[in-house]
Amino acid sequence: MKLFRTLISWDNALKTVLAHAKQTGKETIHFDESVDRILAEDIRSPIDSPPFDRAAMDGYAIKGQNSFGATPNNTVLLKRTELAGESEKDVEICEGGYLPIQTGQSMPKGSNAVVMLEYTKEIATKLEIYKPVTPGKNVSLKGEDVKKGERVLQEGKVLRAHDLGMLAALVKTRVKVYKRMKVGIFSTGDELSDPKNLAETEKKIADVNSYVLEALVKKIANPYRIGIFKDDYEKIKNAITTSLTLCDALLISGGSSVGKKDFIADAVGDLGELLFHGVAIRPGEPTGFGIINNKPVFVLPGYPVATISAFEMLVRPFLYATHGVKEDSRKLFAVTRKKIPSAVGRSDFVRVKLVCSEDEFYADPIRVSGSGILSSMTKSDGFVIIAENREGMEEGEKVEVNVWV
Amino acid sequence: MKLFRTLISWDNALKTVLAHAKQTGKETIHFDESVDRILAEDIRSPIDSPPFDRAAMDGYAIKGQNSFGATPNNTVLLKRTELAGESEKDVEICEGGYLPIQTGQSMPKGSNAVVMLEYTKEIATKLEIYKPVTPGKNVSLKGEDVKKGERVLQEGKVLRAHDLGMLAALVKTRVKVYKRMKVGIFSTGDELSDPKNLAETEKKIADVNSYVLEALVKKIANPYRIGIFKDDYEKIKNAITTSLTLCDALLISGGSSVGKKDFIADAVGDLGELLFHGVAIRPGEPTGFGIINNKPVFVLPGYPVATISAFEMLVRPFLYATHGVKEDSRKLFAVTRKKIPSAVGRSDFVRVKLVCSEDEFYADPIRVSGSGILSSMTKSDGFVIIAENREGMEEGEKVEVNVWV
Repeated sequence: MKLFRTLISWDNALKTVLAHAKQTGKETIHFDESVDRILAEDIRSPIDSPPFDRAAMDGYAIKGQNSFGATPNNTVLLKRTELAGESEKDVEICEGGYLPIQTGQSMPKGSNAVVMLEYTKEIATKLEIYKPVTPGKNVSLKGEDVKKGERVLQEGKVLRAHDLGMLAALVKTRVKVYKRMKVGIFSTGDELSDPKNLAETEKKIADVNSYVLEALVKKIANPYRIGIFKDDYEKIKNAITTSLTLCDALLISGGSSVGKKDFIADAVGDLGELLFHGVAIRPGEPTGFGIINNKPVFVLPGYPVATISAFEMLVRPFLYATHGVKEDSRKLFAVTRKKIPSAVGRSDFVRVKLVCSEDEFYADPIRVSGSGILSSMTKSDGFVIIAENREGMEEGEKVEVNVWV
Repeated sequence: MKLFRTLISWDNALKTVLAHAKQTGKETIHFDESVDRILAEDIRSPIDSPPFDRAAMDGYAIKGQNSFGATPNNTVLLKRTELAGESEKDVEICEGGYLPIQTGQSMPKGSNAVVMLEYTKEIATKLEIYKPVTPGKNVSLKGEDVKKGERVLQEGKVLRAHDLGMLAALVKTRVKVYKRMKVGIFSTGDELSDPKNLAETEKKIADVNSYVLEALVKKIANPYRIGIFKDDYEKIKNAITTSLTLCDALLISGGSSVGKKDFIADAVGDLGELLFHGVAIRPGEPTGFGIINNKPVFVLPGYPVATISAFEMLVRPFLYATHGVKEDSRKLFAVTRKKIPSAVGRSDFVRVKLVCSEDEFYADPIRVSGSGILSSMTKSDGFVIIAENREGMEEGEKVEVNVWV
């Protein structure tokens, strides 16, 4: 019988996984479908933005100096510049002149400020000004937001609504992003049933993992939830082979401890190369990883909490690396209010509840008693990892919390 | 000419908006489509979970006490209990007996622990045990995760992958969530063109707002991006009326300052009731809000940065309230590294970049010079609001940062 004689460290497991994380290809999509996608190119501005000096308010374009000293009781009077059908770019105001202007319009030559409507009164071709404006006031200068050629968005950025706005502003309507991998997902186990086929009262175990993994993967890649397979070695080998013809990577859960029927890891080794099986993390110890036909296959524990732990500690970093994500923006710092015990020699995945008080977050560990406790997940706001060289966390210690996404 | 003679405070604007935030209805959906939806009912467990004492490991079910004192050199020997075709629930082990068991199986009566395969050797009907197990070891007790009737998920929770896992585990395959509002979005302005119809080199202003608002709304509700309307009072009134027959709420951007063509607010007042126009926030001052045919209409500034500011300060709280979101989980605390000036009497929306060093986040304000600076958004990680009674933030002050989602 095969045992987990040697557990590899989380660090080494992670290195192995990342060594096989080949970046997905790139694809070009419409900018307005790019939210939450990962940028696969640097975006440099093709233009100065604004592309010319333009009015930032509705009002009158003037030379600011001409308004100096204006008060409601001692208004400054300017004369409307007469235009002789010049095209917009040739428009020029005379000394002591003014022209009406709307937000976004190009500033006429000779003007350098916009006096707002509410501080003026226009009578025929004369403008009374009640309040002075300094030169530059209410004007957006050419290139003030972004200069031509300036990098505005960096490769690897997870695009947000504002970035999409920047793409719109720069008329960059198509954008290169990393392709989303197709990740096959199935559960194994004679004891499992699809919850959709169960009555609430049936004494069966519902398949939780394939649904949770589907939801977790969906935020980064394209999940393909295949379902449940019975503990049958040949059938599972077939399922792996077939799934890999359809998918770029595979997450298999269940049957990854060392019981009689725990042959998923064997099947992976049989079909390709099993690179590790058994990691010094808790929960999630019976996690394995292999390569079949050049495609990565994760062997995940049967218990949902252990699978989620293994996902966060190994699969998420893999997906981030393959999809070009540079930074995980889910973290914050919090102070522990209880001692969190942990054994040296393994990395612990501790679920915590965040409590906000005054201007500090506190992290309270959720009772940790076995990987069957799914409520430890649903009650928590995120997790803390206790490094393998630590004997736990002291009360009052500052810890890094990864907030659930 | 109409002026913003009186700006209302952010606080009062928010109160007005929230007073008109009627919760959307509820709908029942499949549990596996529920991620990021907002739960509209308390979920109580219909069952104990686990539903019976069950093995948490593959191995042998024994009475733990029987293994006490076992070592590799001094093994304990147990005898396999013979079964006479009992149904699973009647299975019982004899004193000094054992039965093989797999993860998830019901514990036989009389047993209270599972000894793992790796600490045993089974020869015919005898079991050698090398290591003792305490009673309860490797057993998940009935109701240990969740007790029957216990509330496992609370109304108002934004559902995450783990919650969906809990629903699967409890075989709660249909779940009530708040309906997503249909939010109509359009931009106004003669100067605007759809970026999709523009060449990069054209000296036109691309419509940014309708795309940004669509992307922001999409995370909470169902956006319906209608497009761009010219500055034509009757056409805009028609657009509002028509949009409101199709949507539950409306976001109109552009034309909300007090220039000659700034008649969106007038149109809202004409068609219904304009509740405020002009809020002491920066950017975002020319924001308005009204009710037409019982439906909320936001009048948002033309500048993208101002529109985003108004969205975060007024529209997002409105959408959260209507959709039953109780808590905004985007915040963290950071220390300012520069003084951030602000005027008393208005609430400032300051974009900040987060810098993580050791176990602290620092918030660096992005150069704040006008609402035309869209790069202030794309360079930032989130925002800080400086309350209207504050003259800014001191260097070294701890501030609450709302991280972009």
